[in-house]
Amino acid sequence: MSLRRQLAQLLVLRASGFASDSQRRYPRWEASNAELRRWLAEGLGGVILLGGSAADLALRCRQLQHWAGPSAEQRLLLCADVEEGVGQRFEGASWLVPPLALDPLWRRDPERAEALARAYGACTGREAQLLGLNWVLAPVCDVNNNPANPVINVRAWGETAAAAAALATAFLEGLQQQGVLGCAKHFPGHGDSSGDSHLELPLLPHSRERLEAVEFVPFRAAIAAGVASVMTAHLQLPALDPQRPATLSAAVLSQLLRQDLGFQGLVVTDALVMEAIAGHYGAGEAAALAFEAGADLILMPADVAAALDALEQGFQQGRWPQERLEQSLERRQRALRRCTPPPAEAAGALEQLAQAEAPHRALAQELLELSLQRQGRSVLQGRSVLQESGVNLIRIDSSLGCGFLPLAAPALLRPQAAGFQALVLDDRSQPLNLETLPPGPVLLQLFVRGNPFRGSAGAGGAWASVVQSLLEAGRLAGLVVYGSPYLWAELQPLLPQTLPAAYSPGQMPAAQALALQSLGLGSDPHEGGFTD
Amino acid sequence: MSLRRQLAQLLVLRASGFASDSQRRYPRWEASNAELRRWLAEGLGGVILLGGSAADLALRCRQLQHWAGPSAEQRLLLCADVEEGVGQRFEGASWLVPPLALDPLWRRDPERAEALARAYGACTGREAQLLGLNWVLAPVCDVNNNPANPVINVRAWGETAAAAAALATAFLEGLQQQGVLGCAKHFPGHGDSSGDSHLELPLLPHSRERLEAVEFVPFRAAIAAGVASVMTAHLQLPALDPQRPATLSAAVLSQLLRQDLGFQGLVVTDALVMEAIAGHYGAGEAAALAFEAGADLILMPADVAAALDALEQGFQQGRWPQERLEQSLERRQRALRRCTPPPAEAAGALEQLAQAEAPHRALAQELLELSLQRQGRSVLQGRSVLQESGVNLIRIDSSLGCGFLPLAAPALLRPQAAGFQALVLDDRSQPLNLETLPPGPVLLQLFVRGNPFRGSAGAGGAWASVVQSLLEAGRLAGLVVYGSPYLWAELQPLLPQTLPAAYSPGQMPAAQALALQSLGLGSDPHEGGFTD
Repeated sequence: MSLRRQLAQLLVLRASGFASDSQRRYPRWEASNAELRRWLAEGLGGVILLGGSAADLALRCRQLQHWAGPSAEQRLLLCADVEEGVGQRFEGASWLVPPLALDPLWRRDPERAEALARAYGACTGREAQLLGLNWVLAPVCDVNNNPANPVINVRAWGETAAAAAALATAFLEGLQQQGVLGCAKHFPGHGDSSGDSHLELPLLPHSRERLEAVEFVPFRAAIAAGVASVMTAHLQLPALDPQRPATLSAAVLSQLLRQDLGFQGLVVTDALVMEAIAGHYGAGEAAALAFEAGADLILMPADVAAALDALEQGFQQGRWPQERLEQSLERRQRALRRCTPPPAEAAGALEQLAQAEAPHRALAQELLELSLQRQGRSVLQGRSVLQESGVNLIRIDSSLGCGFLPLAAPALLRPQAAGFQALVLDDRSQPLNLETLPPGPVLLQLFVRGNPFRGSAGAGGAWASVVQSLLEAGRLAGLVVYGSPYLWAELQPLLPQTLPAAYSPGQMPAAQALALQSLGLGSDPHEGGFTD
Repeated sequence: MSLRRQLAQLLVLRASGFASDSQRRYPRWEASNAELRRWLAEGLGGVILLGGSAADLALRCRQLQHWAGPSAEQRLLLCADVEEGVGQRFEGASWLVPPLALDPLWRRDPERAEALARAYGACTGREAQLLGLNWVLAPVCDVNNNPANPVINVRAWGETAAAAAALATAFLEGLQQQGVLGCAKHFPGHGDSSGDSHLELPLLPHSRERLEAVEFVPFRAAIAAGVASVMTAHLQLPALDPQRPATLSAAVLSQLLRQDLGFQGLVVTDALVMEAIAGHYGAGEAAALAFEAGADLILMPADVAAALDALEQGFQQGRWPQERLEQSLERRQRALRRCTPPPAEAAGALEQLAQAEAPHRALAQELLELSLQRQGRSVLQGRSVLQESGVNLIRIDSSLGCGFLPLAAPALLRPQAAGFQALVLDDRSQPLNLETLPPGPVLLQLFVRGNPFRGSAGAGGAWASVVQSLLEAGRLAGLVVYGSPYLWAELQPLLPQTLPAAYSPGQMPAAQALALQSLGLGSDPHEGGFTD
């Protein structure tokens, strides 16, 4: 095999889970089918997928493997950021509450929380394996000890090192037992940053001692539990390397991760296309520096050809010994040998997925129920539905392309059945003007959580004043927060104890159904499918 | 075969194109998988599908046929309302401009228009056949001679009987040559109604002579061209039947359609679940009356069990002779024998679909180009992008679940690259307040077309006054109308000749790309995939 072909095996390209180029949701970052076929023919080793339904994904995984070729050496790593169940990214599979929802339970009942985290991992692993993903880019092993963290937040398994280590490891065990690879991320720990590495390079000023005591703990646990891969963080950690971010640092990847922590699996970079790296180092040199630092796999290089050129040139110029490449290729093959092959046909995969639907749905429901918080009376108590119409004021990041708010969503239909007409606000709406709001009681539903690329962990302050204004006007009929526990912690103390209010860490339709049910807004015959 | 099983073959149930119940967009009307399996095991003869991608559909059609059973007698009719290409309902397949876009070309150049309608039909038929649909519920044969018609409108092929007949027939020929069945609808002609039969029962007061001269013309032409099926209209036509709507009228279905017009193929009702029928006659009796009147197939009965009970009882009580059932079953079998079986595996279907993508895309683009209208200078002329930011004011019916406005849509990205920030208005927004609009020039993009269930053909008057206010304030930077030619005809005369403005009958991303391109807003690297 040529050097260039061997190097191509170390690259992981991003593609859409849809069959047609025209369906790509982020065409700037998603390779076209022509590009994919070309790179796969040249030996590309992996693809990270985003977008499409479970059925789309099942067909897509088989198509990509078909394009790569039939031999064992052509077997692809197919991965996705399905941290909250495969259904988080691929509709039709299971979508579970964000991991941080288990942290409060763990403090009360660690055994039950760990059993649930294990089941969470098993559900995710089983569905990934059936559909054709052999590499799940989870668990997040960061300790979310900074509520203002815009990028980790509820994706983490704990706010303390002990919780994160215990729950992430339980998830990992459940996951990897299904014959797919896990990935502990973002090494050496991204939980205490307040910047967004998608936009800029955050800095962690902590000492090595503090990092040992907090950040490293879940990674050590995941390594001890046999995690197949570790993903690097785009973070500056002056205590470990005064110059390079972790992704490009030999001190972090080779000295700390490989030697001090003894990790022998695959080291993969976080997406090199992120501005924090691509903007500073250039597409080719970023890939070369990551490989030099100790990474085996290069995720989403900003420019595949430039990355290959830089790596090839490095070998030709003797920048690294040949054995360094052989080690990475051998680790990759060893990882692939751990994977259970999926059913050959997409139809068979979907049939098996359907057979697993009932227990997976019961798990999703159990997680929602144990993480629900509520207070106050029913929204309908003392209210005459027929005589009074109200406003169902919904806040979401973007109503366009919003997967969790279909037209039959409980958050729309249930309040409507009770006389609350939906008014949807998002980043593309005119600012909320309470003075021109239609009259009547207001049910406020806030879908807020930390999201990468938004550079903010939520939208707290502004909503506190809306809540207070509605309370002063005697118009707040109810409040539901979906997502951020920190926003709920900020708003809930403002409410009278009798005011109907609920919090769910989930944003999916099943979370809406449960939260609204708890406030007396029962199921609507038009919705269906979201509850048992 | 039992009587009940034979009767079940005449029913067509609605289901989602998605694999999982939780993905249903309209669960009120879409059978669950458990219901589908049960009815298919009891002999159900057809399914009408809506929702999901082309890949979802390919897997779904094969799954339904698998559930029905392997024998020839168990072969299903699988249909969809894909009047504007399979991509209108199933993303990833081809989505073409609405048929009425060809009417102006037909007046200038009938030969070219008919050739394009034939290619339109061939594209639709080929994609349907590959994916697994064997019955396309098109062409609409109604003459759209009433611009206020909320339900037919741009779905029709012409505003005159001659245009509608010529173009619908050309489409039909192209379609049926691909081995799928067509359907002329809505007999005897729904074009001149101004009510929405989804909500109420419209009345056509015309004489038989007038109906002969206008409404019947395209149906006679389609029958002469060998159309496999005809769908009935939920319409009152006192000149034909003073009591019953067409769907339930023996005078219309047996006397007029079968005897006078000599149609020997399948007669199918429009959806019996529609309020105009279900509300008046009840679920069981509506099905019995339609069958009695001469329908072979019952589409979307409001209650499958009630429809079967009523039909079975009718036979047991001798309401109809046994031979009436045999005729309908024989017509159904004859229709099925005309169909080309699809590729056995979904993966193979998608591969063949991809091979046809380039010519189908060229056709879609040709149709967009010939139907585009524009006036005025470039939006950017005399404008400094860096110094002035503006508003990209977009009007759509619903931003939630809006398929043609993904986050990478040209209607969002291209204006943004030129400094226009999107502000999206829909039915769930606060009313537009021009006084609180952000400052700067306004690019107005109106997505408006007649839509069933909305009971209105558009939103004309209100937008004329918005356009005039923006013109008076000197803030209108450009206008694009996507969809309704009637709204464009109303707004365009208000504009100064130099003002950049465009109209496209299409609303899909490719229509956005072309219309904005014509106004000087060129392609954006983030969008991709929408143009050649």
